[in-house]
Amino acid sequence: MSERRYVITFGCPDRTGIVARISSFLADAGGWIVEAAYHTDPDTGWFFTRQEVRADSLSFDVEELRARFAEVARSLSAESNWRVEDTGARRRMVILVSKEGHCLYDLLGRVASGELEVDVSAVIGNHDTLAGITRAHGIPFHHVPFPPGDKAAAFAEVRKLVDEHDPHAIVLARFMQILPPELCEAWQGRALNIHHSFLPSFVGARPYHQAHRRGVKLIGATCHYVTANLDAGPIVEQDVIRVDHSDAVPDLVRKGRDIEKITLARGLRWHLERRVLVHGNRTVVF
Amino acid sequence: MSERRYVITFGCPDRTGIVARISSFLADAGGWIVEAAYHTDPDTGWFFTRQEVRADSLSFDVEELRARFAEVARSLSAESNWRVEDTGARRRMVILVSKEGHCLYDLLGRVASGELEVDVSAVIGNHDTLAGITRAHGIPFHHVPFPPGDKAAAFAEVRKLVDEHDPHAIVLARFMQILPPELCEAWQGRALNIHHSFLPSFVGARPYHQAHRRGVKLIGATCHYVTANLDAGPIVEQDVIRVDHSDAVPDLVRKGRDIEKITLARGLRWHLERRVLVHGNRTVVF
Amino acid sequence: MSERRYVITFGCPDRTGIVARISSFLADAGGWIVEAAYHTDPDTGWFFTRQEVRADSLSFDVEELRARFAEVARSLSAESNWRVEDTGARRRMVILVSKEGHCLYDLLGRVASGELEVDVSAVIGNHDTLAGITRAHGIPFHHVPFPPGDKAAAFAEVRKLVDEHDPHAIVLARFMQILPPELCEAWQGRALNIHHSFLPSFVGARPYHQAHRRGVKLIGATCHYVTANLDAGPIVEQDVIRVDHSDAVPDLVRKGRDIEKITLARGLRWHLERRVLVHGNRTVVF
Amino acid sequence: MSERRYVITFGCPDRTGIVARISSFLADAGGWIVEAAYHTDPDTGWFFTRQEVRADSLSFDVEELRARFAEVARSLSAESNWRVEDTGARRRMVILVSKEGHCLYDLLGRVASGELEVDVSAVIGNHDTLAGITRAHGIPFHHVPFPPGDKAAAFAEVRKLVDEHDPHAIVLARFMQILPPELCEAWQGRALNIHHSFLPSFVGARPYHQAHRRGVKLIGATCHYVTANLDAGPIVEQDVIRVDHSDAVPDLVRKGRDIEKITLARGLRWHLERRVLVHGNRTVVF
Repeated sequence: MSERRYVITFGCPDRTGIVARISSFLADAGGWIVEAAYHTDPDTGWFFTRQEVRADSLSFDVEELRARFAEVARSLSAESNWRVEDTGARRRMVILVSKEGHCLYDLLGRVASGELEVDVSAVIGNHDTLAGITRAHGIPFHHVPFPPGDKAAAFAEVRKLVDEHDPHAIVLARFMQILPPELCEAWQGRALNIHHSFLPSFVGARPYHQAHRRGVKLIGATCHYVTANLDAGPIVEQDVIRVDHSDAVPDLVRKGRDIEKITLARGLRWHLERRVLVHGNRTVVF
Repeated sequence: MSERRYVITFGCPDRTGIVARISSFLADAGGWIVEAAYHTDPDTGWFFTRQEVRADSLSFDVEELRARFAEVARSLSAESNWRVEDTGARRRMVILVSKEGHCLYDLLGRVASGELEVDVSAVIGNHDTLAGITRAHGIPFHHVPFPPGDKAAAFAEVRKLVDEHDPHAIVLARFMQILPPELCEAWQGRALNIHHSFLPSFVGARPYHQAHRRGVKLIGATCHYVTANLDAGPIVEQDVIRVDHSDAVPDLVRKGRDIEKITLARGLRWHLERRVLVHGNRTVVF
Repeated sequence: MSERRYVITFGCPDRTGIVARISSFLADAGGWIVEAAYHTDPDTGWFFTRQEVRADSLSFDVEELRARFAEVARSLSAESNWRVEDTGARRRMVILVSKEGHCLYDLLGRVASGELEVDVSAVIGNHDTLAGITRAHGIPFHHVPFPPGDKAAAFAEVRKLVDEHDPHAIVLARFMQILPPELCEAWQGRALNIHHSFLPSFVGARPYHQAHRRGVKLIGATCHYVTANLDAGPIVEQDVIRVDHSDAVPDLVRKGRDIEKITLARGLRWHLERRVLVHGNRTVVF
Repeated sequence: MSERRYVITFGCPDRTGIVARISSFLADAGGWIVEAAYHTDPDTGWFFTRQEVRADSLSFDVEELRARFAEVARSLSAESNWRVEDTGARRRMVILVSKEGHCLYDLLGRVASGELEVDVSAVIGNHDTLAGITRAHGIPFHHVPFPPGDKAAAFAEVRKLVDEHDPHAIVLARFMQILPPELCEAWQGRALNIHHSFLPSFVGARPYHQAHRRGVKLIGATCHYVTANLDAGPIVEQDVIRVDHSDAVPDLVRKGRDIEKITLARGLRWHLERRVLVHGNRTVVF
């Protein structure tokens, strides 16, 4: 595992002296900054930063850091727009799937090989197609059928299964159901979806069919936070791959899979490493 | 200049024996095929091919080739979906511009250095910003102002200036005026536009502003044939470039310029080399 | 599974009438060509083609097609440079691994989900790290240790384990051992390696360390056929990903993994679909 | 033109409190930081930063800022590894060319359209092919022939012509002559070259021929600082474009041109904006 660090993420209205305030606070505590990034949004006049401090460079623990940093944050009018987290605390995620397995296979491989430092608490599928591979990895699989007429009960069941793990990330890995507004709200900032198009093109169902019909020369995938507006949440990452006239819809589907799984994994990693700060409907990715 | 060739482009309903029919015809005439590409569209059951034959391998000229090939085309029910052209016949294009010069500078450089084998018959601008560089290349520049209330007269003037050259390509190189339907029809299959977004995202005005607002992580450009439906014509080429949260709108504009000019130049080259076959609202690019 | 087809791959010295000869042969037999590609190499004067014919469009079987096509090939001086294969015959592959699992996880996922139509006959590792995931997929795993002083015996064992399956592909999925010349020869045209650099940059050991030291701004991966010259065999596919000054070697390793597995999978797919024709030390990929 | 800023670039051995020291200094002076970037190199234990401060936020001028910052730098043992520059001071560059014009056309277009904020003091060519376009832009062109046997005199002449402008950048825009060591040293950190390969692949002459022979599937271009080791200087930027078996050497040359000019322009922009910090043979690009 990586060396233990404390990660500070922070946003406040821009003004002179913010960096000096934060860095002096850390310097006074002996904090060794391993990574630091800053961004000022000229449109909204908002300032953002993310800093990684070596845990062993401070003489106090993360609780104390949090308590002391709260004063800094207050003095800069950051209100609740800040966090101090400990990379030593193992993170948890729950994955929601349907029948298509490429994203799940990919995530499980990354976790098993230690590339993604996270525990998969459970996988939940509206079909049981992917139960085998999940359990082969020693991870519980829950099959929650979604009968056409009665999705409310199914979503309630999914919510219960997810919430009992209080996960840091809920990953919709080609889960083909649209989350109801109350789940979008409950999981705000934690639910990541992979949409199989280069948003905002081809929102909604069957994006590869839409892309084929339009005759685009590149297809894409978008990893975004789930909000109540379908496929319109803050974008974390996107990527594309070239296609041409010889690619029929099944070719788009096949080529798109590689982009989907890579894009989702990248966005998820950044989310888990607290690199993503949401600001309105846009993201700062440090 | 490149070695002289005859280029056959051809489309017909798919059936057994088309390739045999065409290639036997060419073989019987001693035709040396330098490049050949085929495509069958499974959705529409339509067959397409493009072939380049060395001019000096045939004992007759392009007129005779055209006359003889007409029989082949008739026997395969190709109707008017075929062409035989001579790369020895120099091509002409007219470029329409406004104030933004990056695409024009790029095209003029490519023509001047011999990279694009085409004559620029004229450049027409609704502003005169780009008159200087155009004339420095020895190319006539026509300034046709577009007064807000009376665009019809301006378009009539543009049409007259364009049509007197009977150009093979009319290139809208960031020409910020929307062509009226009658011009779209008159120039069908010859008018190429560069739109500064990855279509179908961000149709219409100020696409970089739209992209910034949506928080996309890649921006793009689309080279397409102009049709009466704004930004909805057959796509010839697209490309993208990565952006991030630190890019404000002017950064998107700047980064986008490189993609625009490269994408337009690529699409234009393919058009001039008769590599683009339009089929419905999609293109086959051989 | 896909519709059954016969795949013809063919190379011969270029001359007039080759396409006519082959396509007339197929047309006379009623062959429905689903996909066709041609290439002439101007440097060597060599002609290549690959054609896919619907099996049900012919009135005879693949053996008969092969026998009849042999005459065509003979008349065009193709010698042994042609093949007729049946996509209905299931293909087999053996995968060689060491400790790094990302390529293996990826390949197993693709096979399990039906994306790659091939049977994994066995996985062989010089470590047993990846035995678990292999067996979870119901595939035999053989652990063949490579003691530093005595690799000959180990290679003999690997060869025996591989050859008993007579596989269409032997995939070195980050197998960290250099094949001895006799194995390179025995498996010529069937052994695919993934090298973790953009060849010919950074041949040999620890390419990511080499890349970091040189300060490159993109890292890559190369899928190539194994030959007796280390990392110098015919290249099937390459891809790259952007890196910057903030990426230390472990970051390059991590980012590179995604490129490695995608590039290997792409090259392998093309190999299995007989899309790759080797010509000298270069490949034609149809 | 952009809003006036002071740009601080700075490097020193890493230790606790550097950011606090610099940002407190700026905050005390009322400095409004518009952009800030930090990097710590774990291999060398070296710290780097680049900061942009609004000129109008300080009550003193750039000379005074430089004088005061010198103390900060001294206290952090930065020695000569820092600079304070004023974006209000117009920059100058000299471009060296041969016969190939695509990079020159591109740079002149960027300067003429205001995209690159720099004056082109002169263009120097060992051929006069590009005199016309240069002078059309109102820029002096000097033709300095390079007779095979006597390059020393020619280089002396080039040096004189360059040095009289004391340029911030000397751009080798496909200048096909190898700079002698004394010029490499005199222009260290200011001479930018575009090499038409993805370095370190294909060093030296005719890289596209080398690439074709090796059968690579991507070709690239590299913008790097010139040093006495041919094509081995610190890399500023690289990019690639896909090619395939149908691309002969002239196709590689043509496709490569677009990558060359874009890569050079990107690297040059970063150099002019003081975004590039050289550290050993690597670059930090903020």
